[in-house]
Amino acid sequence: MKIPEHPTLNREWDKKEIKKKTDKMLEEIGELQYKMYAQGKYSIIVLLQGIDASGKDGVAKGILKFCNPVGTEVYSFKKPTDLEYAHDFLWRVHNVCPAKGIMKVFIRSHYEDILVPSVEKYIPADIIEKRYETINTFEKMLEDHGTKVLKFFLNVSKETQEERLMERIEMEEKHWKHKDGDWDTREKFDQYLKVYQKILTRCNDVPWHVVPADKNWQKLYTVAEVVLKTLKELDLEWPALVTERFGK
Amino acid sequence: MKIPEHPTLNREWDKKEIKKKTDKMLEEIGELQYKMYAQGKYSIIVLLQGIDASGKDGVAKGILKFCNPVGTEVYSFKKPTDLEYAHDFLWRVHNVCPAKGIMKVFIRSHYEDILVPSVEKYIPADIIEKRYETINTFEKMLEDHGTKVLKFFLNVSKETQEERLMERIEMEEKHWKHKDGDWDTREKFDQYLKVYQKILTRCNDVPWHVVPADKNWQKLYTVAEVVLKTLKELDLEWPALVTERFGK
Repeated sequence: MKIPEHPTLNREWDKKEIKKKTDKMLEEIGELQYKMYAQGKYSIIVLLQGIDASGKDGVAKGILKFCNPVGTEVYSFKKPTDLEYAHDFLWRVHNVCPAKGIMKVFIRSHYEDILVPSVEKYIPADIIEKRYETINTFEKMLEDHGTKVLKFFLNVSKETQEERLMERIEMEEKHWKHKDGDWDTREKFDQYLKVYQKILTRCNDVPWHVVPADKNWQKLYTVAEVVLKTLKELDLEWPALVTERFGK
Repeated sequence: MKIPEHPTLNREWDKKEIKKKTDKMLEEIGELQYKMYAQGKYSIIVLLQGIDASGKDGVAKGILKFCNPVGTEVYSFKKPTDLEYAHDFLWRVHNVCPAKGIMKVFIRSHYEDILVPSVEKYIPADIIEKRYETINTFEKMLEDHGTKVLKFFLNVSKETQEERLMERIEMEEKHWKHKDGDWDTREKFDQYLKVYQKILTRCNDVPWHVVPADKNWQKLYTVAEVVLKTLKELDLEWPALVTERFGK
């Protein structure tokens, strides 16, 4: 089973060249992000989804490398708390959406509320079914408000996932990332991919970007390209001087 | 009027040398911050106070340069909202204190709730008076919980402040930072310093660090030194592997 990948995958990949290009793009992202923050007109969500060990944290670190931390945020969605569970599934998501000016990385998102119950089957299918349309409307509303929602599916292969999960057992500094349960989830790899396929098709009003995730430099390059393009297309401007005290 | 400065000021300052040292320290901070995040036992607040244009945002950016954004946060305290005002002065502060594992930069803090009302006199003196002791108890509680509170007063001179405020009028990319009101506040520079002196004396149970803030490289070096020393003194360890599935 295979999810069709981002067109960049078909290009020639020269690792050294790509890394150099990526660094240049990240610097540009940093400059434009600060301008977006100063202007306070738009916000961006960099939404990262992917199977365990697809490298979401690494993308967050990479994309924000040259950004100003005053205008950026990262939020990791975990297993919902009791309080969150007592609300509709978008409540906790809405609560952490970025204010105008902010670029925010979502590590996981509302898509977990389709993925996990679809595979684990603890919510009736007809309720899950409604969430696709609810999400489309929600994301559309955010976009109408000036929040660009950039959605990335980090497409890691089953083989690479195994290597990375094994590292967590073998390397002292990665032990803390290990959870036995990730290996149970891994047994359902194809089931998860099947739900992802449905999500990529049915929640594509705000488009998905399928990103090759077996190699970190390919992954970061692809995400950076989309983020930079988005920033460039916004009408970012330094705000004018507002003063009554200092005549022009 | 002059506030006594951090002892580093008395050293020989070689700009090139200091910048190199600072970068090395920042890298070490990044490594240790990630370990602190993995361990999830401690948290750190890097609390930045200083007159307008003392360069708080710049310190945030500098200190976090090599940190992993997944385990770091920045919070800027602004003029309290109506909702915040309807609560005690520590309510909004408590609400954004870092969870275990997180290193968080506070741009301004609860000290604003002594500074501004003391100078502007819109709260009775006896109420402000109580806040000193309340803050001492609050910070002590955070420390007891494993949150290191590192407090920095960015000590900018009146002359440098004027230069920086002028840049906001003169440079297009700094216009957005300009507020006419900052010039009114500037007229009360000495009044603010006087309150700062009182704060530095009476709220020193968790100690203050007075930082030279006229030169950015001196400022960042001094703050980095304290942050790095603090991280080194914590008993940071990579957590052990927790597994029932993979025998040792």
